Amino acid sequence: MAAPNKLLLGLFLCLLGTTALATPRSPRLGSATRMCNLQRLTASQPSERYEYEGGTIELWNVYEDQFQCVGVEPVRKTIRPDSLSLPSYHPYPRLVFIEQGEGIIGVHFPGCVETYDSGVLQDGQGPRRKVDGYGAQQKVHRFYPGDIIAIPAGAVTWSHNDGNQDVVAVAIRDLNNPANQLDMQPKPFYLAGGSSGQSQFNIKNIFSGFDTELLAEAFDTDPEIVRAMQESCNRGLIVEVQLPMQFITPEVLEPIEKLPRQQQQRPGGGLNGIEENICSEKIVYNLDSQREADISSRQAGKLNYVNQHKLPILWYLDLSAEKGYLQPNALLSPHWPMNNHVVVYVLNGDARVQIVSNNGQTVLDQQVNRGDIFVVPQFFATMGRAGQSGFEWVAFKTSRSPMKSPVAGYTSVFRAMPLDVITNAYQISPSQAQCLKTNRETESILFSPQRTSPRS
Amino acid sequence: MAAPNKLLLGLFLCLLGTTALATPRSPRLGSATRMCNLQRLTASQPSERYEYEGGTIELWNVYEDQFQCVGVEPVRKTIRPDSLSLPSYHPYPRLVFIEQGEGIIGVHFPGCVETYDSGVLQDGQGPRRKVDGYGAQQKVHRFYPGDIIAIPAGAVTWSHNDGNQDVVAVAIRDLNNPANQLDMQPKPFYLAGGSSGQSQFNIKNIFSGFDTELLAEAFDTDPEIVRAMQESCNRGLIVEVQLPMQFITPEVLEPIEKLPRQQQQRPGGGLNGIEENICSEKIVYNLDSQREADISSRQAGKLNYVNQHKLPILWYLDLSAEKGYLQPNALLSPHWPMNNHVVVYVLNGDARVQIVSNNGQTVLDQQVNRGDIFVVPQFFATMGRAGQSGFEWVAFKTSRSPMKSPVAGYTSVFRAMPLDVITNAYQISPSQAQCLKTNRETESILFSPQRTSPRS
Amino acid sequence: MAAPNKLLLGLFLCLLGTTALATPRSPRLGSATRMCNLQRLTASQPSERYEYEGGTIELWNVYEDQFQCVGVEPVRKTIRPDSLSLPSYHPYPRLVFIEQGEGIIGVHFPGCVETYDSGVLQDGQGPRRKVDGYGAQQKVHRFYPGDIIAIPAGAVTWSHNDGNQDVVAVAIRDLNNPANQLDMQPKPFYLAGGSSGQSQFNIKNIFSGFDTELLAEAFDTDPEIVRAMQESCNRGLIVEVQLPMQFITPEVLEPIEKLPRQQQQRPGGGLNGIEENICSEKIVYNLDSQREADISSRQAGKLNYVNQHKLPILWYLDLSAEKGYLQPNALLSPHWPMNNHVVVYVLNGDARVQIVSNNGQTVLDQQVNRGDIFVVPQFFATMGRAGQSGFEWVAFKTSRSPMKSPVAGYTSVFRAMPLDVITNAYQISPSQAQCLKTNRETESILFSPQRTSPRS
Repeated sequence: MAAPNKLLLGLFLCLLGTTALATPRSPRLGSATRMCNLQRLTASQPSERYEYEGGTIELWNVYEDQFQCVGVEPVRKTIRPDSLSLPSYHPYPRLVFIEQGEGIIGVHFPGCVETYDSGVLQDGQGPRRKVDGYGAQQKVHRFYPGDIIAIPAGAVTWSHNDGNQDVVAVAIRDLNNPANQLDMQPKPFYLAGGSSGQSQFNIKNIFSGFDTELLAEAFDTDPEIVRAMQESCNRGLIVEVQLPMQFITPEVLEPIEKLPRQQQQRPGGGLNGIEENICSEKIVYNLDSQREADISSRQAGKLNYVNQHKLPILWYLDLSAEKGYLQPNALLSPHWPMNNHVVVYVLNGDARVQIVSNNGQTVLDQQVNRGDIFVVPQFFATMGRAGQSGFEWVAFKTSRSPMKSPVAGYTSVFRAMPLDVITNAYQISPSQAQCLKTNRETESILFSPQRTSPRS
Repeated sequence: MAAPNKLLLGLFLCLLGTTALATPRSPRLGSATRMCNLQRLTASQPSERYEYEGGTIELWNVYEDQFQCVGVEPVRKTIRPDSLSLPSYHPYPRLVFIEQGEGIIGVHFPGCVETYDSGVLQDGQGPRRKVDGYGAQQKVHRFYPGDIIAIPAGAVTWSHNDGNQDVVAVAIRDLNNPANQLDMQPKPFYLAGGSSGQSQFNIKNIFSGFDTELLAEAFDTDPEIVRAMQESCNRGLIVEVQLPMQFITPEVLEPIEKLPRQQQQRPGGGLNGIEENICSEKIVYNLDSQREADISSRQAGKLNYVNQHKLPILWYLDLSAEKGYLQPNALLSPHWPMNNHVVVYVLNGDARVQIVSNNGQTVLDQQVNRGDIFVVPQFFATMGRAGQSGFEWVAFKTSRSPMKSPVAGYTSVFRAMPLDVITNAYQISPSQAQCLKTNRETESILFSPQRTSPRS
Repeated sequence: MAAPNKLLLGLFLCLLGTTALATPRSPRLGSATRMCNLQRLTASQPSERYEYEGGTIELWNVYEDQFQCVGVEPVRKTIRPDSLSLPSYHPYPRLVFIEQGEGIIGVHFPGCVETYDSGVLQDGQGPRRKVDGYGAQQKVHRFYPGDIIAIPAGAVTWSHNDGNQDVVAVAIRDLNNPANQLDMQPKPFYLAGGSSGQSQFNIKNIFSGFDTELLAEAFDTDPEIVRAMQESCNRGLIVEVQLPMQFITPEVLEPIEKLPRQQQQRPGGGLNGIEENICSEKIVYNLDSQREADISSRQAGKLNYVNQHKLPILWYLDLSAEKGYLQPNALLSPHWPMNNHVVVYVLNGDARVQIVSNNGQTVLDQQVNRGDIFVVPQFFATMGRAGQSGFEWVAFKTSRSPMKSPVAGYTSVFRAMPLDVITNAYQISPSQAQCLKTNRETESILFSPQRTSPRS
């Protein structure tokens, strides 16, 4: 009897605790600012580009209506070989896709309880120290092309290109995530380096804002060292590595202090769900290396996705992703996203994409090409057809468990709808209505190019 | 030992999953736009009316301060016999009350996992098809007067009047629901028909926004059929039925494909809480046909309500409702709603209603009549007295489990408060304070007309 | 087998139910109003002061950018001996700290289900009454200096100073709490008294807004009594006690009707998690009387905190607090709050405090003194050094389970970060980087004054 009860308790604590981190979104504003009253969407390229000694950062214009509606800022980072993207944290979670290259990323999430919660220090006759591995957890992960990397709000990250080619990473910053209690503007906090650019990118690292002497005392160190930290501001945000970084490998560093499981339990007894999940969870998932695609059709293409079930940390982030490929001229079936917005980044090839808003207006109808980003807001209807060289994309979604509602194909609205409703709705014959229900009934989401000649 | 563990797992998955759908509201905006700084509320009739061949849609003015504060759009739809309200979906849940008539409603909720999640298609030597009932679930329900119908965000619905008298349905659209990731404007998406009217009601169906050839290829059908879909735009939103719809009955159609329970389980094992709840859940509850009212008093009246406990799908919608009747001259006791706004629709009779805001200002004091809607914002104090012919109403509430806080009667604040606090707060005698505590102590919420002569 | 299943059911109901009350925050608005784009924070004193016969209420200016960003209104109330702070409720939860004095507080939370849910009244041959203790629950608690008192949204509270010295209470009103479905303006509702002052403090009690005759009929009482209730408006919000209040003691009054546990179960069977938690939960926690501080260092100071684990009702409120003391010249280590804003009230002594925003800008750098309030927004970096007489504070936090991320000390970011990353990020030597990692490694959060001479 003991076992299930303990499990129950753990479950309970887990759920209790996690609710604090993982929660839902809200509709945008009131009518005064009609942020999703979108008349026009456009596939777009980055609007700002910042060059640093070790790479570049490219930003899409987050103040465009389409990004304001979905509450997301897209960004593309290029890290040159032997370069280091400096440590930073953000007030919202990020989802990163590795388009090219490989390297190492460090992710530091500072304990999942108030760090002094576990009573790190107590002094009687002098400092005593309780064994506690929480506060110092640093995970170092190797990443490869096709990886999705999930970064919780507030986690300090840095990344290092130790390979031979540029690392190219595309990411979304989920400004509207419930983890963010600030406003919906991008707010990167850097621990080193700095950048002078336009308004939002005039960044100094946070140490430069503190008094040098005070900080030196806090670190109990020479003010010269602190001055070096503060003055790194003029080095940009991605730097060339001066001293070799050979020691950093996931095997050595993950985690710095590995405690036996029973020591990781909280003093109060029971499992602490948050540490179990957010602290020791896997944060990387490869969308290419799966033996079997989630959807696969020789004529149409294939689709792989990652959601909370495949990468549980996405539950906390309330984000997910998919990577898809359409064969030349194949179709992405008409559908709408049910419980999420979609931000699509074009990896290869091209497609003609159409998006339709609630009043039937065509808000996007264009050919999208490599490097473009376009958004499909929640419930907006969309479809597309790949060009002559096919179409490959990665899509970021603002839900941990996204759903699509297709209008054609096996799982579609029409297939489920009574024939009589379709005939009366469109004043068509029962046999025509039957075509709408069944013509694509062996396909779903990915449709092969026109297989048969039109029937009537 | 296995059983509870499996149950546990199911529970866990259920809770994990459902959090994505069911979640809480937020306070409105900042001080810049003081949306609930209401100086004046008014009972109001619809401000816009649209006539179609098969019926009418009447809208209240959602841009009035009172509806902006509560984040709700009221609407009344009349469907004439042998007419069909065309298929549509909305980015927010809806709660519908059937005031008159009977008919059939179809509700299509497209799977509760990404529809391709279950791997519908894999082709090796040709298309194979896994058995999967999720995507195609269509529920058809018969409705009667007094029914509350709960419609989740994004569900495609149509309804058909197959009776002899007009169907009259009053509904709220819960714009501020967490399921809605767009903005707080009404955004109906129609799959057929269309309507040309003022700004927000200039609607074409979503198919009219797509390219005809592209859509025909997607449906693998004749462009003529697609053109018929697109051109249905000039038929309005409620149409007369041309072809008989005799085949649609709940018995036949609910659900289209009924799979044995074990096949409905997800491949990963365990129960999937979302399907169990949102997909196969009851969505209709009758507020008239209960054997015993929730509150009933021969002198005062009666009250029936439906919340998440009686209709579990309301947990996902975070909405609920009550239907009440006050005897002539009976009172609705002074109280305030604790965790919800209330939108009241007057069914019959009339009442004098008063609503008081936080600074003690009378923001509503008027006689409300049949067809009026008025709102009681969260925490605003209200009371009312029925007129000579009694007062009947239905109230929609923005909480799955609403609470009232009454100031008089058995369950009231005053009854719970120490006598000394009351005497000192109002500088009245202990015997007077005792009256406030106990005079209505056998009644709650519904008070009979003045029973005794005033005491002092 | 039965036991775990019942427990499961209880758990399930609990979680289901509680979600309605306890939930998360959202980011602020869109870019149009950049509420947390803070250029300048300031430690501030109250901007308005209202004198009443029994005490004073002092309000900080909630319309300052800093309070708008964190969504919190600070308030300080002084209640003189033998005075009564009149009954009121607020649409958001409050967290109160008793700085001085002792007394009694009554907290009335009106049932946790719709009060008529339990079917209070049914009449057949006359009124029958079901036994039901929910609606009438009134808790009376004695409070002492150092107490944190947690008050749920909508709970009616009054407090009485029955001691010999002034009661001084500092509180935050969490306007941005999900429990609040109105807007983000302070909205106190008073049940007695009234106050004429500037705009937001021109308050009449809610009874004054109702018709006297109608209210008298509702209370089934003499209109003279109602008139006394309405006319108490000119007595202020804190009154002198005219009639002795000797009967009010927690022992007598808590709760008014104590039912055996099995009768407290809901008719449907199973435990109702909400009542179990929010209705019968402890709401007071003393931050001084703990035998052992959560963090304690003879040279640096000590820290006590209360979160959802120590006072479970804080789970519903999504708030928590800490009380800290720094020895003269000791340091609060550089850190940032991870999942909450912090509102700090200075109790004694003084400190130099610095706060740095995301772009490295020093947004606060000043000496803070007794009675000052300053805010540390989520993720903003902060540190401080106590003055010659030490520094004592209480901090209110907008999370049920707050986390700090320190940059120095045992649990810090730097300690977790690979040496090579630090050396390359700041272009310092490995031995210098080692200092940053380890110099304060035996301390956390509270740092003793400079212990050694600077090393290099």
